[in-house]
Amino acid sequence: MISVEDARGRILAGITPVGAETVALAQGLGRVLAAPVLARVNQPPCDVSAMDGYALRAVDAAPGARLRLIGEAPAGRPFGGFVGAREAVQVFTGSVIPDGADAVIVQEDVDLETGFVCPRDGAMTGRHIRLKAQDFAEGAELLARGRQLDARALGLAAAANAPWLCVHRRPRVAILCTGDEISLPGERLAAGGIVNSNATLLSAFVVAHGGEPVVLPMARDDMDAIAEAADAARGADLLVTSGGASVGAHDLVQSGLAARGFALDFWKVAMRPGKPLIFGRVGALPVLGLPGNPVSAYVCALLFLAPLLTALAGRGAAAGLPRLEGASLGAPLKPNDQRADFMRASLTETGGVEVVTPYGYQDSSQLRVLAGAEALIYRPPFAPACLPGARVEIIRLRNT
Amino acid sequence: MISVEDARGRILAGITPVGAETVALAQGLGRVLAAPVLARVNQPPCDVSAMDGYALRAVDAAPGARLRLIGEAPAGRPFGGFVGAREAVQVFTGSVIPDGADAVIVQEDVDLETGFVCPRDGAMTGRHIRLKAQDFAEGAELLARGRQLDARALGLAAAANAPWLCVHRRPRVAILCTGDEISLPGERLAAGGIVNSNATLLSAFVVAHGGEPVVLPMARDDMDAIAEAADAARGADLLVTSGGASVGAHDLVQSGLAARGFALDFWKVAMRPGKPLIFGRVGALPVLGLPGNPVSAYVCALLFLAPLLTALAGRGAAAGLPRLEGASLGAPLKPNDQRADFMRASLTETGGVEVVTPYGYQDSSQLRVLAGAEALIYRPPFAPACLPGARVEIIRLRNT
Repeated sequence: MISVEDARGRILAGITPVGAETVALAQGLGRVLAAPVLARVNQPPCDVSAMDGYALRAVDAAPGARLRLIGEAPAGRPFGGFVGAREAVQVFTGSVIPDGADAVIVQEDVDLETGFVCPRDGAMTGRHIRLKAQDFAEGAELLARGRQLDARALGLAAAANAPWLCVHRRPRVAILCTGDEISLPGERLAAGGIVNSNATLLSAFVVAHGGEPVVLPMARDDMDAIAEAADAARGADLLVTSGGASVGAHDLVQSGLAARGFALDFWKVAMRPGKPLIFGRVGALPVLGLPGNPVSAYVCALLFLAPLLTALAGRGAAAGLPRLEGASLGAPLKPNDQRADFMRASLTETGGVEVVTPYGYQDSSQLRVLAGAEALIYRPPFAPACLPGARVEIIRLRNT
Repeated sequence: MISVEDARGRILAGITPVGAETVALAQGLGRVLAAPVLARVNQPPCDVSAMDGYALRAVDAAPGARLRLIGEAPAGRPFGGFVGAREAVQVFTGSVIPDGADAVIVQEDVDLETGFVCPRDGAMTGRHIRLKAQDFAEGAELLARGRQLDARALGLAAAANAPWLCVHRRPRVAILCTGDEISLPGERLAAGGIVNSNATLLSAFVVAHGGEPVVLPMARDDMDAIAEAADAARGADLLVTSGGASVGAHDLVQSGLAARGFALDFWKVAMRPGKPLIFGRVGALPVLGLPGNPVSAYVCALLFLAPLLTALAGRGAAAGLPRLEGASLGAPLKPNDQRADFMRASLTETGGVEVVTPYGYQDSSQLRVLAGAEALIYRPPFAPACLPGARVEIIRLRNT
């Protein structure tokens, strides 16, 4: 058994991002930049007004002054002329500042007479003017390689006048669920049979972390069937298996893949749930072998698959690491053994303090408990007993 | 001007979730349940083994006992017979416990002789057995109405043998950007013109919050054009406009929509950025009028559009409210005026303390600053001056 940290290090060693593709700006949400976005324009394109008001020469503004109103410049329709001495042009937020003017006085601060603008006060040069390229200049790098594109980033790429984006393609993840006992959701179950929940769970997990799942047909507990299924993973960036990972006579993932040259990196991690995790490669294809119990499969996905996916996707592994937060323990915990523990728990807030309480049932087959859990309590190996109120580390489970 | 809280209350008053549709389990990620998911099977379907080992009668296990091995029961292939006195059947994780047996002894705790199993220790009735329906019983409500479906929930729905889901359809959000100065990303810009970034930003924001954007063709600053564009919003659950929200002669959203019977609920919120927010209705269609400056539009989206979307989507408005967290201030702040302030800021961690530092530039046209920001500092109206190290409230900007 190796530690969670060692296992993660070995899984991530040598993982490089997948290649790039071109997508339209409107398809960019959630994608990861493979090349920076550069500004193709200045923003603002020239000096513009920050307010609704009047563009003028600052020296002309004073109480009692009377400036001739020589035109208006709505946003998008610049005034063609020149603002001379004791002249003013009406402007609006975003209007181009006309040549000759060097300040804007806001409309609330003037009196209007027919054809004239009478400032009630002075003006400062540059006041209420957004300078050309104040937000960004043409050619500037606005978004770096590796940035996952959210609404703000996409808005900025639009403002940069970039209709196309160079992003990493989504890592293709082949998902192979094994087991004689599993059937597809909605199918008639055999006696003692259960539904394959891991294909659905893992598929959603892969999508949520930026990957593209390819759910392979399920394989029976048969070495040849597993070897053949693995052939179908050709072209994938990662093969994830579920089930058949333990030591039983019907745990055939390793032996099945051996027929295709599987090179084991490690097997078994000092953690609970999820101990029988397998990692290795078939040729260049990384293979992550998850336990069949859905809770084990999920916790392993959270700890290992997520950073593997973000590394493949070009965001870097750190982006996929679960974030540890502190919370106050709501029930006593016994000392931990040599395996890191990830206990399903509820979160409540009382008086501004978040209290995390482990559920009484921690069996790795209990998907219902997992689906209702709000956090995992992380207990390092050999953590001492804890009393209620102790500070513990948690992984918040929110839309994951 | 009304307060942020009042504005939100008025926007959300009377909003009800959109209707339901049927989607396949595999399409369920991110969707919101309109009907609960009930278990269609028991899980486990019958008593099953939690370990690899031997099923037997607990009374027969003792050091020195010798039990006849009468068969095996791999997961998915139940043993047909009956386990009598001093008999054992090999089982695996998930194997059906054969009739007659009442305990499992793990394989590490037995010696094997040809045809016999010799326990090294006693066994307890029920030990290493997962009872029928221990995770859930047929008919149980596993996932409640209003749950947004993540990987765990979808895995549970699969385990429940539910191939179809009843979810709220995605709220349709018509997005109308107005302005003579804006053009589509990639198009040639007119003199003084800028790119329409809000359509892209808002469209991504709507998708990220579970909605379906319909980006209407842009409207010029012309009342008729705005009125006609609004007609294209027919069938939408919400119309979001950007631009034309202020007091200038070319701010025509209200007057344009008036031709279609626009009933104003409120205009102007005591906040910075985002003051000229408009809310009202055209018939039954809610209309949220955002300011044109992209930073203002985004902050208003975060504060008002997100909860509106989650309310429409069936998750409840609370799911869309920004979560306020605490952080330590990294630079002094002046006293605030009567408008709630949402300052763009960076977040750094030093010695376990998160420090939030506002950027020097807070102009609402600076999308680049917003796109790089890690948090917004929330300053309530009339907040007093703060020194570095003071505790302030922030909204973390992570993939939003």
